[in-house]
Amino acid sequence: MSSALDVLAVGNAIVDVVSTADEAFLNRYNLAKGTMTLVDERTADFLYAAMGPGREVSGGSAANTAAGVASFGGRAGFVGKVRDDDLGRIFRHDIRAAGVTFDTPAASDGPSTARCLIFVTPDAQRTMQTYLGACVRLSPADVDRAAIESAEILYLEGYLFDPPQAQQAFREASEIAQMSGRKVALTLSDPFCVARHRSAFLDLVERYVDVLFANEAEITSLYETADFDAALQHVRRHCPTAALTRSEKGSVVVSGEEVHVIDAAPANVVDTTGAGDLYAAGFLYGFTQGKGLATCARLGSLAAAEVIGHFGARPERRLAELARGVP
Amino acid sequence: MSSALDVLAVGNAIVDVVSTADEAFLNRYNLAKGTMTLVDERTADFLYAAMGPGREVSGGSAANTAAGVASFGGRAGFVGKVRDDDLGRIFRHDIRAAGVTFDTPAASDGPSTARCLIFVTPDAQRTMQTYLGACVRLSPADVDRAAIESAEILYLEGYLFDPPQAQQAFREASEIAQMSGRKVALTLSDPFCVARHRSAFLDLVERYVDVLFANEAEITSLYETADFDAALQHVRRHCPTAALTRSEKGSVVVSGEEVHVIDAAPANVVDTTGAGDLYAAGFLYGFTQGKGLATCARLGSLAAAEVIGHFGARPERRLAELARGVP
Repeated sequence: MSSALDVLAVGNAIVDVVSTADEAFLNRYNLAKGTMTLVDERTADFLYAAMGPGREVSGGSAANTAAGVASFGGRAGFVGKVRDDDLGRIFRHDIRAAGVTFDTPAASDGPSTARCLIFVTPDAQRTMQTYLGACVRLSPADVDRAAIESAEILYLEGYLFDPPQAQQAFREASEIAQMSGRKVALTLSDPFCVARHRSAFLDLVERYVDVLFANEAEITSLYETADFDAALQHVRRHCPTAALTRSEKGSVVVSGEEVHVIDAAPANVVDTTGAGDLYAAGFLYGFTQGKGLATCARLGSLAAAEVIGHFGARPERRLAELARGVP
Repeated sequence: MSSALDVLAVGNAIVDVVSTADEAFLNRYNLAKGTMTLVDERTADFLYAAMGPGREVSGGSAANTAAGVASFGGRAGFVGKVRDDDLGRIFRHDIRAAGVTFDTPAASDGPSTARCLIFVTPDAQRTMQTYLGACVRLSPADVDRAAIESAEILYLEGYLFDPPQAQQAFREASEIAQMSGRKVALTLSDPFCVARHRSAFLDLVERYVDVLFANEAEITSLYETADFDAALQHVRRHCPTAALTRSEKGSVVVSGEEVHVIDAAPANVVDTTGAGDLYAAGFLYGFTQGKGLATCARLGSLAAAEVIGHFGARPERRLAELARGVP
């Protein structure tokens, strides 16, 4: 069956507010380095007032992945909820300008467009405080059945388990994809997000997921083991294909008896925001092009290396050009 | 007389939307490279739709200068008009987070906060399309007499001649500064801006201006001569001190019989936006610290070199640290 899209990504529609901060700042406000914490609007306003000058760039995990797929030359779509405010217009502009199809209607009332305050420390680590805002309004009604049926891969971000209505949208989307013979891919997003929704994640992986993305902290959290290799043995029995990222140690892809260990691509690390999102973009782009799993992982590493070389979680260089010559 | 501020800057309060573009894009939309063009909201929306993914960073010429003065450790204030929308809140946050006093009330109705669409070409030149929005609401009522009286230097951007009410605010502010024995500094901003308001500029320079900033194109436009040296002879008779910038050729400072020719500081040029604004910041900071004119110019070159090394028109590194060791 032919497909109109290579990847349809569903996730939180977020504008990132990126600033640099030192360790003392994280300590003063009790921010857990390297993680994503959900905050209410008041806390977001309080932290924003304490934050240094920012730059606003569109973000959102799955949206970054969609932008990455498009930058490789793939056909990508995105489903996510903004409000009809300035930040919502910025989000819509940026994702469309990146070449991604995005037609989810903006909310005309209720909470404002989601913001993620990102504090980048001198070690290039990012610490994220997210106000979900309009994202909580994403509902099954926003799930575009025709788009899912027409997309080779439905890609879901784990963060979308946080807004309650969105969980339901998630399940319905997975069901539609499966019934249409499409693949379902999921990223676990964050170890604390996994802890908040472990049984729902395990159930989703069990029932629907064809390709699972996770980093070391997330996959060990999912299977409640301290040991990466033990988690790897779990996931290989649980899910057809898993791509497990290990920061500068590269990634491990496991699919039944097949295992590939792929190095990270060299990078001058400025801001690690978006590394996992862009790894998924490269992997999924390769996957939809019928590449072998090792090539998928190499394309993932390449895209991750590009995005951590600058501030912001979307590629600044054309990934299609960087990808030339990848075996 | 003691002062509460070193520099009080008055200008357009603008959020920059920065994107990369190629020469073909500029040609297609007939954009004059290296200049600033005023556009109405409809044109701004049209160009924004055609623009690539952007990053939003606070800008505005005089506001950038104020942020630069603060980064050197100087006491800076800013007067300018935003609306009470998302972009207005971003502008207010960023300038305060930069350490600048900013108390001009936001407009609660009327046009939205000003945006400047900045297209950066591969040669690092910037081409700017500005929708002035709420800036046109700046009026003499926003001129804070006490702040002007308390600031050692009142700094005005030429761009503020474009919104009509603001011109009047300009003159009143200059009058207050002069009556209080304060210095008035002005930047000509842009050669086309000079052409639009030449006689008003000449009159302002004649009556009020102690320190004039201009680049080569602006100063030759002001005196309607093709020759930089001729313009220099004009300005030395017209104004106590003039700092004339010449891009990679550095700057020439002239004050009566005193003339200094100062080299540009070495830079890896990424985006020239803000070069003039930050030159003025360094110069004015030195000036308020009682430094000689050559040192003022060197501080200007240093700050300009920092800002052209990255996207965005405000410093990312602490200029006070970079300035250590400047003779």
